[in-house]
Formats: sequence, C-alpha cells, structure tokens
Amino acid sequence: MGALRPRAAVVVTGSELLTGAISDRNGPWLARELAALGFEVAHVQLVGDRPDDLARALERADDDGCELVVTSGGLGPTADDLTGEVVARFAGVPLDLDEAMYARIAQILAGFAARTGFGGPALDAANRKQAMVPRGAVALDPVGTAPGLVVPRPGGPLVVVLPGPPRELQGMWPAALASAPVRDLLARVPAAGARSLRYFGLPESEIAATLRAIEAECDLSDVEITTCLRRSELEVDLRPQPGAEAVAEAVHAELAARHARHLVSADGTSTDELLARALRERGWTVATGESCTGGMLAARLVDLAGSSDYVAGGVVAYSNQAKTDLLGVPAEMIATHGAVSPEVARALADGARERFGADVGVGITGVAGPGGGTEAKPVGYVCFCVTTADGQVIARDPRLPGGRTDIRERSTDVGMHLLLRAARGA
Amino acid sequence: MGALRPRAAVVVTGSELLTGAISDRNGPWLARELAALGFEVAHVQLVGDRPDDLARALERADDDGCELVVTSGGLGPTADDLTGEVVARFAGVPLDLDEAMYARIAQILAGFAARTGFGGPALDAANRKQAMVPRGAVALDPVGTAPGLVVPRPGGPLVVVLPGPPRELQGMWPAALASAPVRDLLARVPAAGARSLRYFGLPESEIAATLRAIEAECDLSDVEITTCLRRSELEVDLRPQPGAEAVAEAVHAELAARHARHLVSADGTSTDELLARALRERGWTVATGESCTGGMLAARLVDLAGSSDYVAGGVVAYSNQAKTDLLGVPAEMIATHGAVSPEVARALADGARERFGADVGVGITGVAGPGGGTEAKPVGYVCFCVTTADGQVIARDPRLPGGRTDIRERSTDVGMHLLLRAARGA
Repeated sequence: MGALRPRAAVVVTGSELLTGAISDRNGPWLARELAALGFEVAHVQLVGDRPDDLARALERADDDGCELVVTSGGLGPTADDLTGEVVARFAGVPLDLDEAMYARIAQILAGFAARTGFGGPALDAANRKQAMVPRGAVALDPVGTAPGLVVPRPGGPLVVVLPGPPRELQGMWPAALASAPVRDLLARVPAAGARSLRYFGLPESEIAATLRAIEAECDLSDVEITTCLRRSELEVDLRPQPGAEAVAEAVHAELAARHARHLVSADGTSTDELLARALRERGWTVATGESCTGGMLAARLVDLAGSSDYVAGGVVAYSNQAKTDLLGVPAEMIATHGAVSPEVARALADGARERFGADVGVGITGVAGPGGGTEAKPVGYVCFCVTTADGQVIARDPRLPGGRTDIRERSTDVGMHLLLRAARGA
Repeated sequence: MGALRPRAAVVVTGSELLTGAISDRNGPWLARELAALGFEVAHVQLVGDRPDDLARALERADDDGCELVVTSGGLGPTADDLTGEVVARFAGVPLDLDEAMYARIAQILAGFAARTGFGGPALDAANRKQAMVPRGAVALDPVGTAPGLVVPRPGGPLVVVLPGPPRELQGMWPAALASAPVRDLLARVPAAGARSLRYFGLPESEIAATLRAIEAECDLSDVEITTCLRRSELEVDLRPQPGAEAVAEAVHAELAARHARHLVSADGTSTDELLARALRERGWTVATGESCTGGMLAARLVDLAGSSDYVAGGVVAYSNQAKTDLLGVPAEMIATHGAVSPEVARALADGARERFGADVGVGITGVAGPGGGTEAKPVGYVCFCVTTADGQVIARDPRLPGGRTDIRERSTDVGMHLLLRAARGA
C-alpha cells in the first residue's frame, strides 16, 4: 500500500497556529482537495514562522517521497512572513522583484487605502515584499494582495505557495491547478475512486465488526478504510489503490446494505444538502423554536445559499416569558412539566410552525449545562419535536453526552436529522 | 532564540484528517496549552493511521530536540487505531495487558451496551485492545472508554498519548499534567510570560509599521511577536524568552497606547466575555432581530454558560412576512427602503427589544449572497443597528468582503462589537 499513488504534503505556516490563537482551516481543505485529485496525502505539518522550521518541513516532505507540497501562509507584509524566501532557498534559486506584479499589487493597495484611509510607507513596504518571486517560478495572481507561487525544486517536489487567509487560498487554488507545472504532474495521478458512507445513531464498534466479517472473506489490503465520528455522524471512507476500485465498491454496497436503517448518505452528500433537497421537493418551509441551541439550528438552515426558498424563520425563546409571548407556549404547561419537557418541545414546534405559517416546525429545549441539571433532567437531557402541517409528529428526548458546546452542537445535528426524517416522510 | 525554552511537539493521528473529512481541533488546543505552560511548540504534525508515518513523526520530534510529545487519537477499537503499539516501539518496550484497566473498561462498556442495545463480541475485542499498556508507562484513566498513556523514551522525549475525541482529550489533560513524569518535566520549564492584544477595525500593516518604529529603538530579538487576523479581529501575541519579560511588557504598553482607539482587549479576554461582563454590570438583557445571520448572533450570545442572565431571546426574521409579523417592521418601510436598509435594521433592533422586553436590541439585515446583490446594495452590504432603552442608537452599514460564510461570520462579529460598544456606553 502507498506505493501506487503519488504522495503529496501540506505545510501550513504561522506561529499563531502553534500558540492555539487560531485553528487551521487550510490543512483540512487542502488535504481534501489533494485526496480528491488522487494523491496519497502523507501529512499536514503546522510550523511556526521560524525559517529553519519551515525549511525542515519542506525537506521532510521531500524525504518522504512527496511529489507535491502545498504551503499556506507567510506571504503577508510583516517581518515574520518568510515563505517566499524559504521556498526560493529550498529550490536553490534567487528572488527577483516582479515589476508587473509590483504594479498590480500597488493598484490593489491603492483601492484599499482609498476605502479605509490607511496607507503610506507601511503599505509600500508591504507591496515590495509581496512582489518578490523566486527565479523560474510561476507567479499566481493575487486574490487578496499577496501573489501565490508555483516553484519546482530540481529533482524534488513541486511547491505550490498559497496565502494564509482561507478565502484567498481557496480562490487561488483553481489557478494553481491550471498552471503548467501542476497540470503536468496531475496527468500522472490516477483517479481517486473514493467512496464514503455516513450513518446517524450507529456506534463505531458495529462498523468495526462488519469490516472484520467482510475481511474474513475478501482481501481489503488495497483499500484504505477509515471510520470517523464527526459530531453525531459516523463517516466511513473507502480509498482504493489503483486497481482496487471494484473491491471498494463491493465493500461500500455491503456496508450500505448491512446498516441501512442508520444510513444517511452513501454518496457523500451532506445532511444539510439532503435536507434542503427534501424540503424543496416537498415545497415545504421550515420554522424553528429553539431554547438551548439559541439559534444554532436556524443559522445552520440558513448556511446554504438559496435557503430563503424554504426557511421561514425562527424564534430563540431562551426565557420562559419569550416561550409564552412569542410562541404561545402556555405558562401553565411550563409550570406543570418544566421548560425542558417533551410537552414544551412540541409546543415550541407547533408555535414556530404557526407563527411563521410554515409547513414543518422544530422545537428544541434542553439542559445544556454546566448548571441547571437535576436528577430527573440532568445536563445533556434535550427534548426535540418536529411537527408538520400534515400531522406528522416526531419526538425524541435523549440524554446527550459532553459539555455545553458538545450538547448544543449535537442538539443541532439531531434537529437536522429529525427534520430530514420528517421531510423524507419516513 | 529558541534555545532557552524546552521544545514540545504535537502529533495528531487519523487518516480522516488527511482526507479533509474532519478538521482537527486537538492540535490548536494542545498547542495553546503547551505554550501557556512555557514550552516552545516546535510543530504540530497531522499524520494518517499508517504506523510508519506515526513512527516517523515521533522520531522527528526527537530529532528536533523536543522534550515532550503529545499525541492525540488512534486509541479506538478499530484496526487502524495503532498509537499504543507505535509509541511502545518508539520507547523500546513491549505492551502488556493491564488487568485492572481491562476490568474498568469492561465496566464502562457494560453501561454503554445497556444504554444503546449494542454489545457482544465487537465490544469485547475493543476492550482488550484498549487495555494494552507499554511496560513502564503510566496509564491514565479513561474519560470515554480509552485510557491514555505517559510513556518515557530513554534519552528521548516523554510521550503523552491521549484519545482523539476533543472532550476526552481535554478531560484527560489534567491527569496527564498531574502524572509524575510530566510533573518532573514541568518543574524545569520557565513561565511563559506571554501577552496579547486584540483590535477591531485596524489593518495588519499599521501594526507592522508600529513594530518597525519600536524595533528602531529597542532590541526585540528575544520576543516572538506574531500578528494574526482572526475573522474581524487583529490579534498580536508577544512571547518573551526567559529574561525578556520586561521588553514584552514595554512593547505591549506601546501597542496598547498607539492604537487605543481600535483596542478591544489588552489582557486576552475574549470579546464574548467582555460583552457578557458589560451586560451583567449594567444589569441589561439583550434581544436580537436577525435576517442574513439567521440566528448566528443569538447562538453566539448563548455560547457562554450563564447567558440566560442577560439573553432574552431573538427572532430570525428571514422572510419579509416574518419581519412584519414577529418584529413589527412596517411593510411600507420594507417596500420603500428595501429589506436590506438602515431603516429596517433599526426597526429590527427596536422590534426585538420591545417584543422581548430587553434593554438592548440589535438588528442585522444584509446581502449574504451569492445571489441577491444589486449595484446599490451589492453582496456583502450589511446594515446593523443597536438601540437601547436609554436612547442610544449605533448604526453601521459596511460592505463586508468574502463569500456567504465570511459575510455571515463577520456580520456576527460586527454585531458583537457594536453591542459591546453600547454596553460600555462608549
């Protein structure tokens, strides 16, 4: 295994990543892109803005037989932004000022200065620094202000240098792929042939047992199989080596069949996308009545572009007063059953549906903690209800594990899955 | 630089991280903890579940002079979970079945089987695998089902092996720090002495210019200074080498003074925490009227434990009908000025404040895109208004950069900052 696919590596720079000030978003994004192109991703390295550490990370990718290294970050205006210099040294070439790029950046910065009132010598120094290009490299047009680079190392990997801000990095990626050196490399990479399945409500050990059973009858050594719990969903990914595509397909079919009851998607479509599709097919609108999730479910429904077609709106009824005033939950019901109860969850769903004139409503009320738990209703106890204008009622009241954030995130997931169940009418 | 602080490294395992299926949360968390303890974090390596790659990552941390390596993941029940084995080999010791740990895991799994109805041979195999401990290692009690490990390599780094689920990893961390081998190591680590500043509305190039001016008068080579844009805020971190604490303090004071107008916090307190504090001090409650952010601002306000003290609730008024029906925005106002207008933002703020009986209301309406933009109101145009019962009105209508997600996230940030300004009464 591992010999047949060309290897690629990701190097993310930024001392702020090593102090935990921010979480890296580029590593996962680039890894997914590279895997989808058919590379085996050897590793993602996060290093500080120390030139030696970056140089060592590049050498390691070379040592590990990587044919492509993608870096992110270190193209900014400050003194700790050193990627261009280090990559030039790695490739054994000097840096030259690219006059055309210098002019282009100056133009971008002039617009910035006019908009913000900031400008002057600080900006010009930034401009000059960002227009330095290793000799023989392909420069990629800026998406923000920093140009990207495609730099070949003779006898070593091709290095694609991208900016750190995720929007700029993602915006520049198509141009990097279209550059001649990357195109030449991609021509030699076999298609990924990856498959995935996602389940809701199935423990990882069940998949492990099924895989052991399949392995007893079938050689799986040329398919890399990973299972991973992503919040409430269990994801199984199958990545065949070239030639093992049929094995991956058979395992995929077997896993889909054996655990059909818990299967959410067998083709990689997200739950959000599946729900949007189901709501559109029905011509339904949705409204939310949220307590402990505090708007997270509504925000998630609005994440997708075009969601105004099926999202009517929602109420965050965090106080009891708001539950009664805005969603018509009877005060006596709260007094009798408590604000966290299946009765109130249903009243929130009905209230949201009625107040917004929606076809389906979802109510969520729970104890997110850390305080407020009782023996009968401990931290993590969350009541859900989905009701529809055509009379469906789907109710759950699980005890969810974890801390406040986990409980709220999982509650949002459960809300999405129950809405999906209602919209699928199953 | 770099010689005075002991180095530490983080190795995060999981092939799912290299396919981009999930984003790693443990690397940033561990890096922050290690930096706060006074280590210099050399790097974070994300590697797949291939034993050779994990072994190489450990060797690299050793080569780079790291005295501590913390790993996450690979302690699960499936065949691709190999961390215990690889770390034992790295330390040069065999694995033994820890009978006490075996019994403890069996007990935990029995509870799990009773709750979920899943159990049997699949679970027992998982149990046995998870109770294997490298000889001479300290085993750490499970937080989920997998025990952690503290494994010394003779003449090399100490390896702390933690589980992958963030809640389990974070829950086990105090026990790891309290273990004798880690305690002995920490006794030799000098205090971090780190300082940070956060700004809102200040470009990075201005900080770069200020730092150049300071550097002309003062040797900064023993202070690691990083600047990083985190969504709408610019964060500056100062990390002195031992002995350079006074220099870091002077730079910190200078940066705070020179850019006082844009300063949010000079002591690391988050904006969320500052807002919570300001609302509590005033005894105010807050209500939200959100359109394009779709509940993200309400959800963020509810993030902090105890937020029921000051969050009344909110309405996600995504459709025009909902704006009028639930928050009393006059239909004529929407017809005259458009749903995205400063007028409607104010009506949303007032409506939310009045409907929930709150002291401060915030209204947000904007064009999040990708569709719906016009020449006068392009994608990214967002109207904000904060109004208070005592007559303050703070309004903004910026054009925010980026795609749909960026615009909605930044809108949430701007909403938080405007609320903070109102609550501070400045």
